Amino acid sequence: MYFASDNAGPAHPKVLEALTRANAGYAMGYGADPIMDDVRALIRDAFEAPDAMVHLVINGTAANAIMLATMTDPWDTVFCTPMAHIHEDECNAPEFYTGAKLTLVPDLDAKMTPDALEAAILKEENRGVHGPQRGPVSITQVTEKGTVYTLEEIQALTAVARKYGLKTHLDGARFANAMVALGCTPAEMSWKAGIDAVSFGGTKNGLIGVEACIVFDPAVSRPFELRRKRGGHLLSKHRYLSAQMEAYMTDGLWTWMAEQANARCARLTAGLRRIAHVSLQYEPAANMIFFQTTRAHHKRVLDGGAVYYVMDGDEQAGEPDEFLTGRLVCDWSMTDTGVDQFLALMAG
Amino acid sequence: MYFASDNAGPAHPKVLEALTRANAGYAMGYGADPIMDDVRALIRDAFEAPDAMVHLVINGTAANAIMLATMTDPWDTVFCTPMAHIHEDECNAPEFYTGAKLTLVPDLDAKMTPDALEAAILKEENRGVHGPQRGPVSITQVTEKGTVYTLEEIQALTAVARKYGLKTHLDGARFANAMVALGCTPAEMSWKAGIDAVSFGGTKNGLIGVEACIVFDPAVSRPFELRRKRGGHLLSKHRYLSAQMEAYMTDGLWTWMAEQANARCARLTAGLRRIAHVSLQYEPAANMIFFQTTRAHHKRVLDGGAVYYVMDGDEQAGEPDEFLTGRLVCDWSMTDTGVDQFLALMAG
Amino acid sequence: MYFASDNAGPAHPKVLEALTRANAGYAMGYGADPIMDDVRALIRDAFEAPDAMVHLVINGTAANAIMLATMTDPWDTVFCTPMAHIHEDECNAPEFYTGAKLTLVPDLDAKMTPDALEAAILKEENRGVHGPQRGPVSITQVTEKGTVYTLEEIQALTAVARKYGLKTHLDGARFANAMVALGCTPAEMSWKAGIDAVSFGGTKNGLIGVEACIVFDPAVSRPFELRRKRGGHLLSKHRYLSAQMEAYMTDGLWTWMAEQANARCARLTAGLRRIAHVSLQYEPAANMIFFQTTRAHHKRVLDGGAVYYVMDGDEQAGEPDEFLTGRLVCDWSMTDTGVDQFLALMAG
Amino acid sequence: MYFASDNAGPAHPKVLEALTRANAGYAMGYGADPIMDDVRALIRDAFEAPDAMVHLVINGTAANAIMLATMTDPWDTVFCTPMAHIHEDECNAPEFYTGAKLTLVPDLDAKMTPDALEAAILKEENRGVHGPQRGPVSITQVTEKGTVYTLEEIQALTAVARKYGLKTHLDGARFANAMVALGCTPAEMSWKAGIDAVSFGGTKNGLIGVEACIVFDPAVSRPFELRRKRGGHLLSKHRYLSAQMEAYMTDGLWTWMAEQANARCARLTAGLRRIAHVSLQYEPAANMIFFQTTRAHHKRVLDGGAVYYVMDGDEQAGEPDEFLTGRLVCDWSMTDTGVDQFLALMAG
Repeated sequence: MYFASDNAGPAHPKVLEALTRANAGYAMGYGADPIMDDVRALIRDAFEAPDAMVHLVINGTAANAIMLATMTDPWDTVFCTPMAHIHEDECNAPEFYTGAKLTLVPDLDAKMTPDALEAAILKEENRGVHGPQRGPVSITQVTEKGTVYTLEEIQALTAVARKYGLKTHLDGARFANAMVALGCTPAEMSWKAGIDAVSFGGTKNGLIGVEACIVFDPAVSRPFELRRKRGGHLLSKHRYLSAQMEAYMTDGLWTWMAEQANARCARLTAGLRRIAHVSLQYEPAANMIFFQTTRAHHKRVLDGGAVYYVMDGDEQAGEPDEFLTGRLVCDWSMTDTGVDQFLALMAG
Repeated sequence: MYFASDNAGPAHPKVLEALTRANAGYAMGYGADPIMDDVRALIRDAFEAPDAMVHLVINGTAANAIMLATMTDPWDTVFCTPMAHIHEDECNAPEFYTGAKLTLVPDLDAKMTPDALEAAILKEENRGVHGPQRGPVSITQVTEKGTVYTLEEIQALTAVARKYGLKTHLDGARFANAMVALGCTPAEMSWKAGIDAVSFGGTKNGLIGVEACIVFDPAVSRPFELRRKRGGHLLSKHRYLSAQMEAYMTDGLWTWMAEQANARCARLTAGLRRIAHVSLQYEPAANMIFFQTTRAHHKRVLDGGAVYYVMDGDEQAGEPDEFLTGRLVCDWSMTDTGVDQFLALMAG
Repeated sequence: MYFASDNAGPAHPKVLEALTRANAGYAMGYGADPIMDDVRALIRDAFEAPDAMVHLVINGTAANAIMLATMTDPWDTVFCTPMAHIHEDECNAPEFYTGAKLTLVPDLDAKMTPDALEAAILKEENRGVHGPQRGPVSITQVTEKGTVYTLEEIQALTAVARKYGLKTHLDGARFANAMVALGCTPAEMSWKAGIDAVSFGGTKNGLIGVEACIVFDPAVSRPFELRRKRGGHLLSKHRYLSAQMEAYMTDGLWTWMAEQANARCARLTAGLRRIAHVSLQYEPAANMIFFQTTRAHHKRVLDGGAVYYVMDGDEQAGEPDEFLTGRLVCDWSMTDTGVDQFLALMAG
Repeated sequence: MYFASDNAGPAHPKVLEALTRANAGYAMGYGADPIMDDVRALIRDAFEAPDAMVHLVINGTAANAIMLATMTDPWDTVFCTPMAHIHEDECNAPEFYTGAKLTLVPDLDAKMTPDALEAAILKEENRGVHGPQRGPVSITQVTEKGTVYTLEEIQALTAVARKYGLKTHLDGARFANAMVALGCTPAEMSWKAGIDAVSFGGTKNGLIGVEACIVFDPAVSRPFELRRKRGGHLLSKHRYLSAQMEAYMTDGLWTWMAEQANARCARLTAGLRRIAHVSLQYEPAANMIFFQTTRAHHKRVLDGGAVYYVMDGDEQAGEPDEFLTGRLVCDWSMTDTGVDQFLALMAG
């Protein structure tokens, strides 16, 4: 009954097997390993983007920060929502790598809206060199609250960005979960919807720790590489990143794992709807649920062995009938049994 | 016959087994995994430093840059040799993380000397706020040229640093190889010799990609953690770093691997001394050799299947009788047979 | 009829006379000029702070950014209002100097409220190393909208900051105007109200370009000096900064000039209240007015020779009856005649 | 007898008169003052560069650091000599603004040589993304040791830079003194000699504190302005910078002042040559002299009322017969009488 995060579960066995295979003998380092050639081809093929820049880093913070740095001048501001991972959960890494700042665009259900984006862009309009300049737009898919932008919603946002000459970045730490939820292709959820750069997550979806940085304009590749090295994010034994990502992109492992996580989440959602006093905060669309119930209820369930985060208060102390928000995340390895045990505990 | 780098060989099988063991079930992320508790205990025990800060990162550049940042103000200068990895091979990562600059202290056989250090420190003396201020001293052990500081040499350097109130950092990407070469303990080669902070390398010595950051003053721990996160270097699935380092520190695997590499290097050194026209540039003391021979000789050996770097020129074009430097590095997995094949090819 | 900014008017003649006096002969540079000793004494005396750090820089952006940098770690966030000069008008200078980010605290009439501050502080509470850490609180007095914090309001904010161990910074680009408006002493509006650091403005109040950086904890002085130098903000011919500030602090010139500006602004405010269709957006408390009237009205007045900024739209194009905001700022040199001419034009 | 620095003397009276003239009435701020239009025209005209970017800042450190930042990526290294002001006297400001590092190119008489430059460039050649990348070349004219590059020497250096696609920067804190010494035009000593960017000094040559930043490719202008603002170096009351520079460029004041300083220095040089035990370290070519004499001699002269820096030791303590280096700098206001008094004291 572990729903604390999709980075808490195990890697898929095929990923470990790939590491073991990759471990044979000597290999060139720093991204010159032959497996990386395969990875690049597999991702370009999946994204229908034969020229795209594809590089690997160890986590989403590095992917977001380094890629944004290639799209941003240090006097710019990056447009994102108030709950964006780049704003709340990266301890100023985007500011460190870009030298720039972030402008918070109000959200609706954790999704940036085109009107709010345009208003925020216009607000930065009239200050000449005094204010920060308009930089890229960054959105998160699956959002930090478990909702999913439709393709039309992404297109509407990128259209606004393009109207003002701004680039767009998709923080896709849960790219696979969103894509599976939408039933679309990687290209449709990225460049065909107007996205310029994608943090293509693997870590939260069954890998040990790899994200691909994908930029559809290959001219960014060299500056990206230099920024990656300068940030200490180029691995000497790169083959072990490549091997993970190759396993991920082979035989549909990545979409299969996302389907598993989403299916468990759907079962969990359906079950929660049937439990008294529990209300969902957002419409769960992929593998993450935010729900509210009383402190006493949270406490009983957590004491019963479930593991998840209570977001806005201490579940152990305070008024027992106060409503607090809990977050449940399903990873690929969650089972129907695990979900059902949790629901039984909740209902009990 | 692969002598290009000790980061080109495989990880030890026990390391992969440890990853597989660590992969079972759910675990807390971001360094809160239980294996990390073991790692911390193992390293503190090995270093006889029960209070030391111990954190893990993915590579030596991150270890050096983040740890130096905790010891340096942005108006300081870091003292190192002209061939220091932090100067030559990290694409400005130390400058990025510290905000400071580096002052190059002349070396003897790639080793900083106390006199040169003191002269460099004194040179920064008389400029008030105009010049950079004196920051920490960073030395590399095994040096970038394969030589090894004796304990007395380290003590003499840290004594100079201490005289001027400066901290000291040891870039120990090849810590194990040096320690084995000296036949000393971890403590003797670090805090007992006056060192304040150690980049304790695992990647070049049989791991997939882990270095421990060890600082003997535990007050640095919290700022280190925040700098690590801000640099994008905190891994969510941290257990896979912990597992590697745990295997490394268990049953002497780390020293055994270094012994293997050093023994192969000694055999290689002895063999090279018997080959005409080949001269050693430095006295190889651990697992790395710099040697000179003619371009024609290099070309014949490389064409014959050996893999290593020729440092200061193109081995394929130019005067055949020009002498060029080659670098040979032995990793733990190198065999006597591999060494002997190479020597036969060289001698041939 | 020039109301565009209080940095658009002339310097007081005494300031130029002081420059001329200071110009005689040779003087030590970089702040070691004897006039600076007088300045330090004058400011410490005015602030009843015999140990305070006092240094000079050329403008408010430098004062704010460098002083905040001495109070902030690069993983922190600085609390300020959405209209703070450090957020809107310094092109990322605070981020550049601090390495940190800003958290926007909602305002009431451009003033931060204690409740909003505490809520913002608490929101940064539960993320461990993942989110930015709590840094200093920065408020602006006179605010960017012409309102003035009462001493009690400042005390309430600094009490919240202190409750969480946070330092406080006062952006006093218009310190004199606020102090005159409140009828208090410099100490009452700064350290006696709990403020740790003051950007003490001179440029907007009759100087050529000088601000004093005042920190009541003198331990900050050396790091401040090094950050100032590293930012390129230490002047070799420092005596010309000192001379301006000495003139400012002598015989009450600074308060006299602020009184002049405030008195003109009061006359202007009273006059505007009598003009149809004109409404004040905030209660003008010092030397700055925000007012609304129709685009057609703005256009007529501006075409008639008045100079001021129309903030949220183009006064030349658009619906003539749309209401737009204008900003009027009085400097020390504004005359009653100038005010009355403007009012006549407005009323006409 | 004040020879400590050319930033220790007074500004020329015409400069103060210009400030007083500029002080009349209201003026647009932030570089939009009408005097700046004149300044831009005067400088473009003097440099025969009708499209050049021309902006003003307060000092040489700001000019160097901000301009270099427009020419440098943060993964680059800037080539300069070991005694370059940007290396020794700016407390890491160039590193702060560029994010890059400096590579020290050996000098001959404080001048970079083409061979040493090419060797330094080549040394950065073979490291791919691991090492810093080649950035701009920065030279100082007059050099930090009082020597002057001939036009041919500058051309030879810029030819090397151009061969490798590198930009060139001239730190011209004493541009006028060098130009007068060479008897050439501004264009000949800058773009006609292959220089891309000039820090055009005024502060050391009779102004209060202004340097012009001149870049012959005007595309740099906008990024420069944003970097200047982000560094806190855009002045609101910019007219007082403009007025100084206008006076400087009018009726040959700038060359006249440099001629004065150089003439005094020539007189001083000739006199020193006649004094026993005094030896010149470099051939003084403009307005600065480095000379050696005994500690006892220095002490007697300094005790006699002369003011200058003794560079490499304490003139008050130590062996009386040890030779120490003194630095003498003449500013525009030095008189023949002052020189002769000093020489008499020295000879005495």
